[in-house]
Amino acid sequence: MVNHFVKAVPNLFTIGNLICGVFSITLNMSGFLEVSSIFIFLSAVFDLLDGRIARKLKVNSELGVELDSLADIVSFGVAPALLFHSIAAPSIFTSLAFILFPTMGAIRLARFSVKPTIGFFKGLPIPAAGLPLAGMSFFSYSNAWITILLAFLMVSPIRVKKL
Amino acid sequence: MVNHFVKAVPNLFTIGNLICGVFSITLNMSGFLEVSSIFIFLSAVFDLLDGRIARKLKVNSELGVELDSLADIVSFGVAPALLFHSIAAPSIFTSLAFILFPTMGAIRLARFSVKPTIGFFKGLPIPAAGLPLAGMSFFSYSNAWITILLAFLMVSPIRVKKL
Repeated sequence: MVNHFVKAVPNLFTIGNLICGVFSITLNMSGFLEVSSIFIFLSAVFDLLDGRIARKLKVNSELGVELDSLADIVSFGVAPALLFHSIAAPSIFTSLAFILFPTMGAIRLARFSVKPTIGFFKGLPIPAAGLPLAGMSFFSYSNAWITILLAFLMVSPIRVKKL
Repeated sequence: MVNHFVKAVPNLFTIGNLICGVFSITLNMSGFLEVSSIFIFLSAVFDLLDGRIARKLKVNSELGVELDSLADIVSFGVAPALLFHSIAAPSIFTSLAFILFPTMGAIRLARFSVKPTIGFFKGLPIPAAGLPLAGMSFFSYSNAWITILLAFLMVSPIRVKKL
């Protein structure tokens, strides 16, 4: 029973990540763009903690890894892209950047799930792309070129050291 | 080369599912609730087609399955919940329903990825929960009880025959 509860602890943090991502979207919908971007950073705190807690409690689970990807696409793929969408002046180019960001994020997450790399990441991890986008949005700044660059870095073959 | 392209075809449909889900959210943000709910149904069309095309072309891939889950959490978990959120009168109870829906959807998807069932689904599949919610939203109707029921049916042990 206790063991069952301990096993669920990291997943509760992952669900915290997802819920912060969903809240970020509703805050964006209500026009609170700064708070919306802060919630993406809160998601990142939960995201950082779930893995550490899982390792500390030695309860790494396949379910946890899956749940993590699902939370990440919402919090670091869709939510930052929606912030960009709310700030950027509408044009075909900004729409393209807006669509490319979560799409490349999903491809990045799916690739990592299928072929996990050990000790390093292949392509920019999705939080490392979503957080700069959220940070720029905090200052009401948007840049379609940077958004497209971040999107493509996620699916690029560059190696990034794991934290 | 041709083979490589053929392999990617079902994934293009899955990306279509994801993009329709993202558009549903932006349409909701702009107040076009009916069109927003129609885009969730469009996601379902792409979702139905990707699996069928993959089987027809005999290019079922692990990457495709992963990408499918990532698209589904956005299109049938977050997007319908946001429509419910836009329509329902704000209260603690409706907020609870709003949070539970994508959370249970993510748990459902993660469980299925870890332990796929053959010939039947364990728990209501996420599109079968997201579409009724989108359908109700089309008629500007929201019901927190039904939303909570759909959320829990996703993680329930009921068996649902595969289409």
